[in-house]
Amino acid sequence: MADKVAIVGSGLIGRAWAVVFARAGHPVTLYDPVDGAVTQAISLIEAGLPDLLDKQLLNGESVQAVRARISEAATLADALRDAVYVQENAPERLDVKQALYEQMDAVAGPETIFGSSTSAIPASAFTETLTNRARCLVAHPINPPHLVPLVELVPAPWTDPAVVADTRDLMGRVGQAPITLNKEIEGFVANRMQVALVAEAFRLVRDGVCSAADADTAIAAGIGLRWAFMGPFETIDLNAPGGLADYCARFESLYTNIAAEQGGLGWTDDLIQNVDSQRRDSLDTGQLIPRSQWRDNRLAELAVWKKAMDA
Amino acid sequence: MADKVAIVGSGLIGRAWAVVFARAGHPVTLYDPVDGAVTQAISLIEAGLPDLLDKQLLNGESVQAVRARISEAATLADALRDAVYVQENAPERLDVKQALYEQMDAVAGPETIFGSSTSAIPASAFTETLTNRARCLVAHPINPPHLVPLVELVPAPWTDPAVVADTRDLMGRVGQAPITLNKEIEGFVANRMQVALVAEAFRLVRDGVCSAADADTAIAAGIGLRWAFMGPFETIDLNAPGGLADYCARFESLYTNIAAEQGGLGWTDDLIQNVDSQRRDSLDTGQLIPRSQWRDNRLAELAVWKKAMDA
Repeated sequence: MADKVAIVGSGLIGRAWAVVFARAGHPVTLYDPVDGAVTQAISLIEAGLPDLLDKQLLNGESVQAVRARISEAATLADALRDAVYVQENAPERLDVKQALYEQMDAVAGPETIFGSSTSAIPASAFTETLTNRARCLVAHPINPPHLVPLVELVPAPWTDPAVVADTRDLMGRVGQAPITLNKEIEGFVANRMQVALVAEAFRLVRDGVCSAADADTAIAAGIGLRWAFMGPFETIDLNAPGGLADYCARFESLYTNIAAEQGGLGWTDDLIQNVDSQRRDSLDTGQLIPRSQWRDNRLAELAVWKKAMDA
Repeated sequence: MADKVAIVGSGLIGRAWAVVFARAGHPVTLYDPVDGAVTQAISLIEAGLPDLLDKQLLNGESVQAVRARISEAATLADALRDAVYVQENAPERLDVKQALYEQMDAVAGPETIFGSSTSAIPASAFTETLTNRARCLVAHPINPPHLVPLVELVPAPWTDPAVVADTRDLMGRVGQAPITLNKEIEGFVANRMQVALVAEAFRLVRDGVCSAADADTAIAAGIGLRWAFMGPFETIDLNAPGGLADYCARFESLYTNIAAEQGGLGWTDDLIQNVDSQRRDSLDTGQLIPRSQWRDNRLAELAVWKKAMDA
């Protein structure tokens, strides 16, 4: 039997993580300090499994088998007992994380690794004083992790490198796509690249170059297609006969000129209102939730497509 | 019968454009000043049509029907005669474009629109002195345009707005995804966003944050998945309960801090060699061409997937 994994915090992200580990064969215990939250979370997980089965996203397992591996823990200590790995999904507030990690530290077994789903708080901010701080790190998913495999592993300065390596192995074994940051940096890696691109999209609208919808089309019908299966370095590596160095030599002047114009964010209230009102013309606020469900369905279908392509 | 389209320059891009227009029902004439180039180009197009048919990327047309619409023009004047639209795909050299546009200007009919596939030269640089300059613009595709629908329409200051609108209509009718730039800007829109993202990827490697391969994974297994079907504005619009303005309010500090660190390109010989050597560890130079064929096949399959999803 595979090692036990604990999920602490049973919201959207915690539920998706439960599916990730359970479909890979791990017994999973869920804990949430809010009364009734886990019971509800398990119902929601259960309700979502048949669709994942239909899409063949349960690793060939049955709904019943995956469901049977997921259980509720009455206390934090019960959840963590004998767990090799804990995925923490508490609210994105430093004081909440600090208090929770102190509680977990007090009942942690000698081998348990603690990965935080935080997207913005470095592990050093909430683990420094812990007995088990060498076994804490950030394991940041992209929502929802059962459909988008990237996990960013970000150690604090005191995280044991073996803990990072073990977490990377675990994430790879359960079908995620782990990457390793060598140091803490604001926004980690994926969001930093997103910020760079989004900031340029805002500048293009600010400067009257194109509409928000056309900037979106430039990605969704253009260069975003490659990025669904190749990263930015591989993309440019294939865009010059001699590979990446050849590409850099050919386009250095273009890159230099453009990059010189791309510093700073340039957000103003007017600019944000402008883009927001263009978005509201495209999608009413009341449609944000249905459209998010549409997005998650596309992500699921894209996961199916990628599995088929890689097979 | 649909209006005639002329393709000037029969390399990789010109051939893909011929498929775009022919599968949409347009008679297409190809012209290339290099002896024998068009004959070879038509053979290559012909060889590629059965695979497009298999993937249902010929708009329900037969290989024979699409092939029958494509013909060779012996002279530039023959190619342009009665064409409503000319897609120019000459080498990316200003002197070549200038000379070609003078030749085309001399034989152009009174209604013909001239769209250039150039990725980096603004139309103002090679059309200023032409009689028909109001009917010239950039129509920049992403390679290969029969699989990636984005077309960036970039008018010169003297391009007639009706010409831009007509070209946008035409591109939409043949199944491309046109966007309109309101002014000339270096790199246009898609590549400017790519530059912003790629520059940050280089900085992350430069600063020892992660490997080139892990930066690639952050996109290809992470945020790149959304971008295959939604642009950056729609993505952030769906990432906060109140939409884009809410997202901007929540993440302004993160964006501001990160953007402040993202100015300039920072390329050095050492950095380029570092990333290039990481790429060469992943992919030998001799594998660049097969891997590009793999990429184009993925793009074709992704086009199939997107058609199925949108159906």
